[in-house]
Amino acid sequence: MINRQWRLARRPHGMVTAADFERRDEPVPIVDLDAGEILLRTVMLGFDPAQRGWMDDVPGYMPPIAIGEPVRGSSINQVVASRNPAYPEGALVRGLYGWQDYAVACRAGEEPPSLVPTGVTPEQALGLFGGASFTAYVGIRDVGAVRAGDTVVVSGAAGAVGSVALQVARLSGARVIGIAGGTEKCGWLVDEYGADAAIDYRAENVEERLKALCPDGIDLFFDNVGGTILEAAIANLAWFGRIVLCGGVSGYNAEAPVPGPRNLMELVTRRGTMRGFILLDHLDRIAAASADLTSWTASGELRYRTDIQQGFENIPDTFLRLFSGANRGKQLLRLTPD
Amino acid sequence: MINRQWRLARRPHGMVTAADFERRDEPVPIVDLDAGEILLRTVMLGFDPAQRGWMDDVPGYMPPIAIGEPVRGSSINQVVASRNPAYPEGALVRGLYGWQDYAVACRAGEEPPSLVPTGVTPEQALGLFGGASFTAYVGIRDVGAVRAGDTVVVSGAAGAVGSVALQVARLSGARVIGIAGGTEKCGWLVDEYGADAAIDYRAENVEERLKALCPDGIDLFFDNVGGTILEAAIANLAWFGRIVLCGGVSGYNAEAPVPGPRNLMELVTRRGTMRGFILLDHLDRIAAASADLTSWTASGELRYRTDIQQGFENIPDTFLRLFSGANRGKQLLRLTPD
Repeated sequence: MINRQWRLARRPHGMVTAADFERRDEPVPIVDLDAGEILLRTVMLGFDPAQRGWMDDVPGYMPPIAIGEPVRGSSINQVVASRNPAYPEGALVRGLYGWQDYAVACRAGEEPPSLVPTGVTPEQALGLFGGASFTAYVGIRDVGAVRAGDTVVVSGAAGAVGSVALQVARLSGARVIGIAGGTEKCGWLVDEYGADAAIDYRAENVEERLKALCPDGIDLFFDNVGGTILEAAIANLAWFGRIVLCGGVSGYNAEAPVPGPRNLMELVTRRGTMRGFILLDHLDRIAAASADLTSWTASGELRYRTDIQQGFENIPDTFLRLFSGANRGKQLLRLTPD
Repeated sequence: MINRQWRLARRPHGMVTAADFERRDEPVPIVDLDAGEILLRTVMLGFDPAQRGWMDDVPGYMPPIAIGEPVRGSSINQVVASRNPAYPEGALVRGLYGWQDYAVACRAGEEPPSLVPTGVTPEQALGLFGGASFTAYVGIRDVGAVRAGDTVVVSGAAGAVGSVALQVARLSGARVIGIAGGTEKCGWLVDEYGADAAIDYRAENVEERLKALCPDGIDLFFDNVGGTILEAAIANLAWFGRIVLCGGVSGYNAEAPVPGPRNLMELVTRRGTMRGFILLDHLDRIAAASADLTSWTASGELRYRTDIQQGFENIPDTFLRLFSGANRGKQLLRLTPD
């Protein structure tokens, strides 16, 4: 039994490429299982732009991925051998076991994985009920404190976080405007996700369009992009407007730090607030988020797209789809036929 | 009787210069006083970097100063003729009557001036008990929510706002570090204002010094400067740290918008909050601020510097002192010998 791995070969410089990863195979470490440990086989992987940040040698809320380490990433894994009664063979778990076929979990001192609830598919566990959705939910509801009647603008609105953020805002009574790249994705925003308007940042002047669409200003801006998109939103912020910083995909692959918005002092004039957050501080809200997402999906009020690629050899290229905008919804990859 | 005025001659381009103002004299409008109106003579002027912003043709929390209008600015004025029993002749008022010898106040529909309390000198009314001090107080106490044990960093710390912000933070139990330009001003920070440390941004690497002085990060950064100083503070922000944006003097005289901090996404990792504010939203706190400032001054716990220039002809040059860093404390100018 062979454990195929995609390891981080070197720190990406600028735009991440397939050459930043190397394929290595090693024996499956099954003989090493200690009491309490389990052996996992990877069923499905989830991809997130934040993984790009973990590849830089910069300390953050998680340590950087080490050179030579299998790339860390969201995964659904099946228990294939178990010395832990809480994790019977055949059970599905969710973790960060990354780009490899097999992993040992429940090692002493390690965070154990969470079991995937019965009836939830791997696709759902990594997608609709994955970290990106919960991030969107707490970002709009808790950090952004959305109010009915707010004008809410979401950047990266066709992505896994943005599409849910847009819909949670709409379902909270807000008027919602999404920013995305290309006419196809802008079409989804209006037709599938119920946005009141969409802005195509590739074809339109975002600042001018925001001005036209938000004559009374933006009450809440949920940002996944940063850079000039953030600057355009600040220029159109309502008095006492809030900006929730979720991510900055425009800068993740930059060779040098990208200049920030030139108009930050508008936050003084407009009495604006800008706040960064990560999901880890809001885990107590996941139950409420799950309940709402379940209910909205059942009623048809919330729509969700996944883009499922196939095959171990395609893992690096699938990751790169996030940065070219090729992904059509939450980016996943299936490793096993089940 | 002649009303000397310094009017805005043109919109400054880049660094404001004396040529952006023009001297004009006009008759004093005393014959025009209607019932309820009063005629004021300017006793003292206060200068603030925010006036530079009012000279640009950009809407804000106040309308821009019109070309040909006397320059708007804080003033202490004496009532020299009155058709309003609430303002007896000889009384002192505080207002925004700007760079001229005389002004009519209490016109219908206009905000009336506030009376200067008995025992408060013009210097105190524009200085220690002026808007800059109250801005510092609410910025640290209310917007910044300072807590005992916080590490607080203040930029522009030798200025009228910064020096009070630094001391309010110290008197709230925080460890305080000030950033200013030059060894003389940095000396004041430690010797007069009680800072635990001072950073000379002209001679030192601010980011490196902050790193050394704040090994556990900055809990609260009170910013009067913006630009690279703000970037250095973000790079050293504690987890869940707060940034209070009060002003951005580094950009007020820029010919083109200055790039913002390149590391805003650190606000996500560090779960930071950045908030802009202006005093107008916190007027209910002025009584408490006055009481504390009075008490701290009486006990010697709070020190205050004023830099008083003289003479009508020196008004524009006195304003320019704010941007060269020549001012030695709150910049004032006395117009009358009393």
